[in-house]
Amino acid sequence: MIERIAIFGTGLLGASAGLALRANGFNGSIAGWNRSPEQAQTALQMGALDSVATDPLQMARESQVVLLATPVHAILDWMEKLAGVLGPDHLVTDVGSTKAQITAAADRLFNQARRAAFLPGHPMAGKERGGAALADAELFRGAVWLFTDDPQWERCEAAAELVRDWRAWVTALGARVLDLDAIRHDELVAWVSHLPQLVATALSALLEDHVGDAPELKDLGGRGLREMTRLGASPYSMWRDIAHTNSNAIQNALLMLEQRLAHVRENLRTPELRVEFDKANRFRKE
Amino acid sequence: MIERIAIFGTGLLGASAGLALRANGFNGSIAGWNRSPEQAQTALQMGALDSVATDPLQMARESQVVLLATPVHAILDWMEKLAGVLGPDHLVTDVGSTKAQITAAADRLFNQARRAAFLPGHPMAGKERGGAALADAELFRGAVWLFTDDPQWERCEAAAELVRDWRAWVTALGARVLDLDAIRHDELVAWVSHLPQLVATALSALLEDHVGDAPELKDLGGRGLREMTRLGASPYSMWRDIAHTNSNAIQNALLMLEQRLAHVRENLRTPELRVEFDKANRFRKE
Repeated sequence: MIERIAIFGTGLLGASAGLALRANGFNGSIAGWNRSPEQAQTALQMGALDSVATDPLQMARESQVVLLATPVHAILDWMEKLAGVLGPDHLVTDVGSTKAQITAAADRLFNQARRAAFLPGHPMAGKERGGAALADAELFRGAVWLFTDDPQWERCEAAAELVRDWRAWVTALGARVLDLDAIRHDELVAWVSHLPQLVATALSALLEDHVGDAPELKDLGGRGLREMTRLGASPYSMWRDIAHTNSNAIQNALLMLEQRLAHVRENLRTPELRVEFDKANRFRKE
Repeated sequence: MIERIAIFGTGLLGASAGLALRANGFNGSIAGWNRSPEQAQTALQMGALDSVATDPLQMARESQVVLLATPVHAILDWMEKLAGVLGPDHLVTDVGSTKAQITAAADRLFNQARRAAFLPGHPMAGKERGGAALADAELFRGAVWLFTDDPQWERCEAAAELVRDWRAWVTALGARVLDLDAIRHDELVAWVSHLPQLVATALSALLEDHVGDAPELKDLGGRGLREMTRLGASPYSMWRDIAHTNSNAIQNALLMLEQRLAHVRENLRTPELRVEFDKANRFRKE
């Protein structure tokens, strides 16, 4: 049973995981490390951690479960570093937003004889801004927590038990576990998460350029505008690695939307516009 | 003082105006007419109207204030019909979503000697679905109610008094009155209302085509996806006339967004992506 957890990256997701574990009855230790020590101190003060580590690799060795809650590139970097120092009595898992590269690295670096186990995960939860100060023990309640575990991987019984136990904890946090192939995961999230984010970013940036200084703007914008631009507040630091590690699927989705908008633009006065509205209505009915 | 109001079009906005007038102390009569009699009966049963008219021109003649709350093309049609049957003791006002054509028609048909007065209006309030059944006495509370009244228009004192009184009622409903030039209105709402709507429609239609039948979809989509597609539920019938009567400004905004999305797509792996996120962040800070 899991008694010692180490969290790498104590921002919104890492600190929320710590808070949620505590709130749902986890009695073991939770150590944390963050590149920016202030974030780790914030998480500590909120009760998301018991201790802040100064030596992250030592912290990982002393834990049973390592939760990687950094952006994707840093997750991939930590996977390289941790593979050499952890053994078959350790489980590493993550909350990275793209899964193909992480799952491939897990295949290469973990989940084999004398190596630690790796369980690639992705909770579909977040806020438009990051940081430990926004952490919330309820962040995962009602959310789906995806795993892109490869059924081919063989693990020793100790590691398999840690995997089962971590999945049980995820359920205890109020999330619903769903298993998905890593490639399919990245394709689907390009459509339902990355495309909406980049549309909100592009729309917000365009509005900043064209009406950002219109004094009437605050008066005119209603709920629709607020909703369509809320994700415009998301910081580049949260999205850079997603754009880098899922470029092909995102490019495809963006190109399709550009073509769709051009189609709407060319048909503002033709019955084709009705076809688009009807299709959009169907999407919202499901 | 206004004692007799006639509402043409008893859908979401018309019926909400009736309910809001009643809720805020209007003691006069409210008659209504709707192309579909069922909508008028619904509005009557909700208390938005005192009576449903069978002869709309007769209803208009018997009122002091006529509120046109139909789609824009129908507003323009009613303006033609009403100009000939109403006189200087009548005020016609509207809630149409585009204002350049309506304001031009008001200049041609009203606001001159021996003619009724016309006050072009546009409450920035609504829902993604229409219909009397969704009417709400609180719909206008906190919203901006725009008027694109032309300062050149001359009106007799009786009409000027009705205009002042109607503006006071709009304030009493909880809305904030804002005056704007009609051309500037149409340009601004293309950016802050029509563009967000058509983006939500195009995004929802695209998702319907590409992932509408993915069984995992419901699980993966979070708050961001729900918000970015909520307006996808808007019906064509509400938007056709807007697309027809503000085509140039909408086409310009759509083309700009297509170019912006292409720029994002071409820069997923370059520092330009940070520039876009930073600009979007600034828009949301204001």
